[in-house]
Amino acid sequence: MSLYQQHLPTLERARQACRERHCWSPYPEMPAKYPSAEQAQGKGLQMFEQHLGSAQGRRRFALDQPGQIGWLGEEVSPYTQAPLHIDYPQADIDTLFEAAGQAVPSWARASIEDRLGVLMQVLDAIYRDHLFEMTHAVMHTAGQSYNMAYAGSGVNALDRGIEALVYAEQAMRAVTPTARWERSFGPSSIQLEKTYRLVPRGVAVCFTCASFPTWNAWPSMMASLATGNAVIVKPHPATVLPMAISVRVFRQVLAQAGFDPNLVTMALDSKAEPIGKQLVQHPKTAIVDFTGSVQFGQWVEKNAYPALAYTETAGSNTVVLESADDLDAALRSLATTLCMFSAQMCTSPQNIYVPRQGVRTPDGVVSFEEVGQRLAGHVAHLCSEPKKAAMILATIQSPQTLALLAQLHEEGQRRGRVLLKPAAYSHPQFPQARTSTPLMLQLSTAERDLYAGERFGPVSFVIACDSADDALQQATGDVREFGGLTAFLYSTEEDFIARAEQAYASAGAQLTTNLTGAMPLNFAAAYSDYHVTGLNPAGNASLTQLAFVSSRFCIAQSRRPARSAT
Amino acid sequence: MSLYQQHLPTLERARQACRERHCWSPYPEMPAKYPSAEQAQGKGLQMFEQHLGSAQGRRRFALDQPGQIGWLGEEVSPYTQAPLHIDYPQADIDTLFEAAGQAVPSWARASIEDRLGVLMQVLDAIYRDHLFEMTHAVMHTAGQSYNMAYAGSGVNALDRGIEALVYAEQAMRAVTPTARWERSFGPSSIQLEKTYRLVPRGVAVCFTCASFPTWNAWPSMMASLATGNAVIVKPHPATVLPMAISVRVFRQVLAQAGFDPNLVTMALDSKAEPIGKQLVQHPKTAIVDFTGSVQFGQWVEKNAYPALAYTETAGSNTVVLESADDLDAALRSLATTLCMFSAQMCTSPQNIYVPRQGVRTPDGVVSFEEVGQRLAGHVAHLCSEPKKAAMILATIQSPQTLALLAQLHEEGQRRGRVLLKPAAYSHPQFPQARTSTPLMLQLSTAERDLYAGERFGPVSFVIACDSADDALQQATGDVREFGGLTAFLYSTEEDFIARAEQAYASAGAQLTTNLTGAMPLNFAAAYSDYHVTGLNPAGNASLTQLAFVSSRFCIAQSRRPARSAT
Repeated sequence: MSLYQQHLPTLERARQACRERHCWSPYPEMPAKYPSAEQAQGKGLQMFEQHLGSAQGRRRFALDQPGQIGWLGEEVSPYTQAPLHIDYPQADIDTLFEAAGQAVPSWARASIEDRLGVLMQVLDAIYRDHLFEMTHAVMHTAGQSYNMAYAGSGVNALDRGIEALVYAEQAMRAVTPTARWERSFGPSSIQLEKTYRLVPRGVAVCFTCASFPTWNAWPSMMASLATGNAVIVKPHPATVLPMAISVRVFRQVLAQAGFDPNLVTMALDSKAEPIGKQLVQHPKTAIVDFTGSVQFGQWVEKNAYPALAYTETAGSNTVVLESADDLDAALRSLATTLCMFSAQMCTSPQNIYVPRQGVRTPDGVVSFEEVGQRLAGHVAHLCSEPKKAAMILATIQSPQTLALLAQLHEEGQRRGRVLLKPAAYSHPQFPQARTSTPLMLQLSTAERDLYAGERFGPVSFVIACDSADDALQQATGDVREFGGLTAFLYSTEEDFIARAEQAYASAGAQLTTNLTGAMPLNFAAAYSDYHVTGLNPAGNASLTQLAFVSSRFCIAQSRRPARSAT
Repeated sequence: MSLYQQHLPTLERARQACRERHCWSPYPEMPAKYPSAEQAQGKGLQMFEQHLGSAQGRRRFALDQPGQIGWLGEEVSPYTQAPLHIDYPQADIDTLFEAAGQAVPSWARASIEDRLGVLMQVLDAIYRDHLFEMTHAVMHTAGQSYNMAYAGSGVNALDRGIEALVYAEQAMRAVTPTARWERSFGPSSIQLEKTYRLVPRGVAVCFTCASFPTWNAWPSMMASLATGNAVIVKPHPATVLPMAISVRVFRQVLAQAGFDPNLVTMALDSKAEPIGKQLVQHPKTAIVDFTGSVQFGQWVEKNAYPALAYTETAGSNTVVLESADDLDAALRSLATTLCMFSAQMCTSPQNIYVPRQGVRTPDGVVSFEEVGQRLAGHVAHLCSEPKKAAMILATIQSPQTLALLAQLHEEGQRRGRVLLKPAAYSHPQFPQARTSTPLMLQLSTAERDLYAGERFGPVSFVIACDSADDALQQATGDVREFGGLTAFLYSTEEDFIARAEQAYASAGAQLTTNLTGAMPLNFAAAYSDYHVTGLNPAGNASLTQLAFVSSRFCIAQSRRPARSAT
């Protein structure tokens, strides 16, 4: 049975989910539900620990890819603030492109079924053999909590990978491989056999970010590979291990299936000597997938040509609080989402717009000041118990984020009101963890420069507006100008909700309205929730739809007189 | 019955044709087969003549679009070399963008069915009421023959329009409009209603070229409009009338259906004061469709960001002559295609590569020199009779082309051998027509600079190569370096054909092998033949596939707790 046939039931089920966009996943959402969970988790931890070096001796991560010119590694665990002591192969870039380019033709000649089968097998291998190893690797580089690393960077990211394969298949299957064409020209009849070949663009470069590497990388890699391209992965130097493990699995499965493992390689750099621009503008770069800062993302979009660019950066995710049936339920949900992974997600809310006149509730109007204080109270409550804080806030990936918090706190004191002061909390399991509770500032729109654009990390702004409509206008204005992926609204007015849905749709942020309860507000489900819209500076890579895959290959045809006809 | 329902049978048939890529069209291919042909043709001529002014008084083409600041018109008929004396509204660009932008929201809110119905109605109105008017308009601007203007710029272009609608519908239907999503988070269950809105990019600018305006414009306009965008058409100042007629029909049908006619407007410039760059870089430009020169096309691709760019330019279309069962049949077909509309098509062949050792035939090897001479003989034969020449060669659109022919003739004499000298032929119906028979030069590869890149007009080069494989390598090298849309091969060796198919597929030219007989070698059929591949500098707009349409809209979602659930 071919790999494609083995994985076809899952693919078929995924196709249905993509069509209907209901809830589905082939994977258990919680670590405890993984088959033989305890044993698997123990083995995963062990595998992770075997990667680690020590102060006595660095450990080399073997990747067996061509063009090696040295070893590089500068990862520091946000949980221990100690180096991981791992070195990864540093490769000569031209050699990687050369090897990737050479690997493409035979991969492109393989059938759609063969490519999809191998790629499903890669996802399956990560799930079966590397999921908990990956979980720890993500924790000790990106700094996520164990549960988030398992779900958001594990099974949810695998789901995004399958989803990309579904759309890649749909785009490729829209092109018939052959046709017979007959027409008369005057008295004579012409019969042609036509062949339509799917030709990949060439070599894709996939940039991954420090705080959330796999969720964007796996679908991007799947989209490029399924359509016949090769991929060079360029991880953020702070978060290499999750991608190094991924690249090694891709290479192993490709080789086992008889393909050239150089279809997937890794190009590494250091913070001091970045190679990003060089990779984007390399003459052999055909596709760039980028996740990272708005600034570099916009540079990529502008300078990638003739390569295609798919970007996911960040933005000012906004909240509009107009009215609520249960204000405290709304504020609790908002508080949880403001704390989730210390707001280091591209979907974390930041700018909370509230009418100066307050928020209507069944018990009367709650004043602007009280809304801010109650929200801060809910956040403070979540942070008050270290065990709970650890699960929700996890750690701060980069020391720069702490510096930003300090600076914003200082400015906020002068220009507004500090609703909540950031402070380290003590992680019960990792006493050396780099942590911080959120900073919350109350401001007027006169201080817009403070909150205009993404402020990466656990910081949010409660902003006084002239009215609910002004709140909506300010919020969607932020999205248009600085980018925005998600948006959150609480309102009991159907008219206002309808206006807000139109306004956010045209600004291009995905809107969640009146959600309370156990689901994190910014949870984005594969097969159901679209990601970036492409309508504002937050990027253009909507995971996953046809536009994400259909330009990654071209169609070359050949035609000749039908052989039976001559 | 809605417009969509009225046109649904045609759309359904077109969907099938796109899936299977067989031969189909709802339109008669020859003018004589048009319903009540004689009467319709007479009326079309009359309608065309009513547009014309005279030396005594220019005629104004009413378009009733906003922002008019003056009148412009500098068209000269290639058939009479006299001005058409037509003035068109010159509009203030910002006003056009403003009006287009205002027209988008209600158009975007219309259902997919409503938009498709109106757009099918536009194509139908052109077919029923304007086809022969368009035929004459194309003749007296682009300079095509009557039959080509009817087919290539008439019904075939309408077919490309329908085809674009089929793919736009396919891409849009891939997004379900709503979904219900249920999942448990811990002990609680979350039920969400999700709405997925298709959001257009905004305002598209469609550049049309002097020699073949409608064939690219109509599908581009359909692709943008079907997905909810507005279109500003920027015709080449030498060929305005076909697009002015088109724009007026779009506006009329849109208004009749209750939509804002400013969804389609025209921005006009003069050769002396071009506005192309201003349009491409206008802050409100979201999409650019460009047909024209390689040089400006590459500028567009490089500078359109943040707008999307779809380009179709030109290139060095190549021929490889390796061996032939019936060499004269092959050479006759090649000769016809070299003459067709005086090789002013983006699909016309230019560089003919022949092994220096000659071409194998069942009657023995025909020497390189003899191949060139015989081919020139066939071309000369086609040009020898004015009536036949008029049908095939038609006219030369631009005086610049005659200057290029003179220059290349002069250089060719010095650096190679002139196989055929260009000369005006006398058009039987239009004695003042701007005409030229083709220039054919025999060269060695040492003179590559002479034929490297497109030489627009009736010029071809017969180039001596070291071997058949060298011929293939030279030819595909041209395509990679200078762009190429079509390619033509004659070979009796299946191995060589297979190699050529791979080589041209990877270079990105659409290959036609061993075709002889009545069909023009470069005939491209809607629903069956793909156009530009996107793999070389000839552009990226493959008419039509999913990549041509799927980025013209974005997906914005909103979600909220399911109403029954709370």
